[in-house]
Amino acid sequence: MNSDKIIESAHAMADAARVAVLPYFRSANLNAEDKGVGGYDPVTEGDRAAERAMRDVLAQLRPQDGILGEEFANKPTESGLTWVLDPIDGTRSFIAGAPTWGVLIAVSDESGPIYGIIDQPYIGERFEGGLARAKMTGPHGTGALRVRGSRPLSQSMLFSTYPNLADDTDTEAFNEVSAQVQLTRFGIDCYAYALVASGQIDLVIESGLQAYDIQAPIAVIEAAGGVVTDWQGGKAHNGGRVVAAAGPEQHAAALEILSKY
Amino acid sequence: MNSDKIIESAHAMADAARVAVLPYFRSANLNAEDKGVGGYDPVTEGDRAAERAMRDVLAQLRPQDGILGEEFANKPTESGLTWVLDPIDGTRSFIAGAPTWGVLIAVSDESGPIYGIIDQPYIGERFEGGLARAKMTGPHGTGALRVRGSRPLSQSMLFSTYPNLADDTDTEAFNEVSAQVQLTRFGIDCYAYALVASGQIDLVIESGLQAYDIQAPIAVIEAAGGVVTDWQGGKAHNGGRVVAAAGPEQHAAALEILSKY
Repeated sequence: MNSDKIIESAHAMADAARVAVLPYFRSANLNAEDKGVGGYDPVTEGDRAAERAMRDVLAQLRPQDGILGEEFANKPTESGLTWVLDPIDGTRSFIAGAPTWGVLIAVSDESGPIYGIIDQPYIGERFEGGLARAKMTGPHGTGALRVRGSRPLSQSMLFSTYPNLADDTDTEAFNEVSAQVQLTRFGIDCYAYALVASGQIDLVIESGLQAYDIQAPIAVIEAAGGVVTDWQGGKAHNGGRVVAAAGPEQHAAALEILSKY
Repeated sequence: MNSDKIIESAHAMADAARVAVLPYFRSANLNAEDKGVGGYDPVTEGDRAAERAMRDVLAQLRPQDGILGEEFANKPTESGLTWVLDPIDGTRSFIAGAPTWGVLIAVSDESGPIYGIIDQPYIGERFEGGLARAKMTGPHGTGALRVRGSRPLSQSMLFSTYPNLADDTDTEAFNEVSAQVQLTRFGIDCYAYALVASGQIDLVIESGLQAYDIQAPIAVIEAAGGVVTDWQGGKAHNGGRVVAAAGPEQHAAALEILSKY
């Protein structure tokens, strides 16, 4: 396995996705459809254009790798590696014009994600981790990614996408953690995982996730020294209920609550 | 009154605030204190540095104008104009590293704000309106600001900073509107007002605001064709309970609910 080639391909995909998706962001022609699955679930031409652009790069550079993407059919792997793609994580932010959606790119082997990118095309920010890398590039330069490290819940900052999680039980669990932290904020989608990796916040707790929602965040946060598991402390790369933490102390304290639910 | 000079001064202030505040954003040295007023209310050196930088520009360019700022003492006006400044609107986002805080700059006469800027230094985005202007500049160029226009609540996107407004009554009022809209999102502070002005979303509903939280958004949104009032339909430039709308239809429908509370 050639790590440099994998990283190079991932960046080529992220670059292609940026070009494909940006014309749709804040476009008057944006046509949000309703997929009709589980309520209001808008999917836009931008999602499809970005995933298509990434698949085109893979077809050229890595035709033997598998693909698991949000918008198109799965492609089985012949190499042992599978790319896990969410062309626009945070579609609701996207259609509202908020710059906190992201393109999620992960590459996995049988053990889970080994490298990932969280890209924010409008701001021009890219967070990457795995295969011995943990760095970000953005409008104000390049830097290493490093989590904040352990601290108690009472000094922790907690994020989730929306105050209602996948169901009432999950929301209750979240609220029990939220009652103990210093600060709870909502609404910035996958960007919150980038903030864990870059040492800004302590916890992201979500539920109802798909594999493509979480594999890139797992790779980036683990490379930066953080912890991502399900609510029982097991592997989270298949999605579901997820907790991402900046250190073992926040992680253990959150799990102590979440694992009861 | 020389409009060009006023606009030029406002941009000079926004430029100075960017330079002053960016070194504090995502800085490991950021020291969030607790002002101890109404719960957790962090104020940072970044706030003070940005307001000081703006006041220095005014001292040089417009020494007779008054100043109402969040961090330092009021300065009475000798010219009839007063600058209303919030150096970091969204301090909680700021300390969490999220790029949705903003620098708010408004200039008011006895009738209220006549021109305003919402600036996001990290993204490099500036929204301005009033004195015959309504435009934005950002990482992908310059454009005119224009609200979406009227549409029913059932097709509207609604934002607020946090699911709990200033008190339970206000939260209940918000939830009654929220139940009727297409999409509700939380968490992006003053950036939501910029999204109303730029035609992306329909409504922002908040309460417990200060004058410096809302005067710049009022100027920018009104210049883009939108409506900003208090929950009874009166002037909102002194803060309190505020509704900002992309068109008369959303505004009237929201007021019908909010004015009962």
